[in-house]
Amino acid sequence: MSNPSENKGNWSDIFKNEAPIHLEIGSGKGQFVAGMAQQFPDVNFVGVEVVKSVIVTTIDKVRESERENIRLLNENAEDLDEIFASGEISAIYLNFSDPWPKNRHEKRRLTYKSFLEKYKKILKDDGKIILKTDNRGLFEYSLASFSQFGLIIEEVSLDLHALDDPTNVQTEYEEKFSKKGQPIYRCIARVN
Amino acid sequence: MSNPSENKGNWSDIFKNEAPIHLEIGSGKGQFVAGMAQQFPDVNFVGVEVVKSVIVTTIDKVRESERENIRLLNENAEDLDEIFASGEISAIYLNFSDPWPKNRHEKRRLTYKSFLEKYKKILKDDGKIILKTDNRGLFEYSLASFSQFGLIIEEVSLDLHALDDPTNVQTEYEEKFSKKGQPIYRCIARVN
Repeated sequence: MSNPSENKGNWSDIFKNEAPIHLEIGSGKGQFVAGMAQQFPDVNFVGVEVVKSVIVTTIDKVRESERENIRLLNENAEDLDEIFASGEISAIYLNFSDPWPKNRHEKRRLTYKSFLEKYKKILKDDGKIILKTDNRGLFEYSLASFSQFGLIIEEVSLDLHALDDPTNVQTEYEEKFSKKGQPIYRCIARVN
Repeated sequence: MSNPSENKGNWSDIFKNEAPIHLEIGSGKGQFVAGMAQQFPDVNFVGVEVVKSVIVTTIDKVRESERENIRLLNENAEDLDEIFASGEISAIYLNFSDPWPKNRHEKRRLTYKSFLEKYKKILKDDGKIILKTDNRGLFEYSLASFSQFGLIIEEVSLDLHALDDPTNVQTEYEEKFSKKGQPIYRCIARVN
């Protein structure tokens, strides 16, 4: 889409239904968002990816899946509140985000408080943030960051794949790293 | 002590100073509380252990350490609010508590909300709960339970010993299990 801020507050019109809208930030090559759209036909999915060359591959995947309930945006997570209106989003997925391990890069982490402020703006009252990562440091940081920001931690898993949850859609990265025996961490946090 | 509820609100008199009072619930054989009392002479420590036969060993250890800043109680965690006055305690340690893994035993876990209510009563306004465990299920449960109860999660570590924190006093159990390569989890939560 050329100017996604035009659609602010009108995403239900774009999807032509009133289904809840879920957002993936950093949708990469799109395996997760395409898999989710297939598994949950009554949810609308928007994948946001800042890297343009990556989103071209994603668009191919999404075309293959021929789903009406996906849209892709080549945008920066910092601009989310210009693209979506207050309360327009029901859930946000953060999958294997860059951990930015150095302290001086804390502000770049997608679970830093300035990002949480943007998410809270666009999420509805009981909206959720679902974080998956194999990075221990990012996970430890994010749990504390969520709590200190005032989100409620609903669920924590330190070995997601041990749960054998059939609804868990894996990203490309998740498939690769979990095969190596690396545990996958997940946290579900709720707007308070 | 024969009747610890007599001392409710008067623990500073017992210790003969105004230093903060830290509590370990389930102090077992007392290695942690004795080590902490040695490392932090300006803090008063109370070890609470429900099993009487265990506390006899603890008393021996405490005598050996010849510290004035330890007291031991053979009491049940459920009675904490009869033993301590509101705001009398600065920190509570939960070390390797029984995980009670079955759902139907949830209420017995020392991080179940009914226990958190007792802890909040006796903790001062910015008082802390410090949980250490090697049990993944208990740790996952406790993070969510803390947050849902309204505590703020200040710090999470999924591999405490990797931090090489020289102030970490190990329990007997912790020494044994971390030698086997089992990671130790820690969470520091704060009263809100």
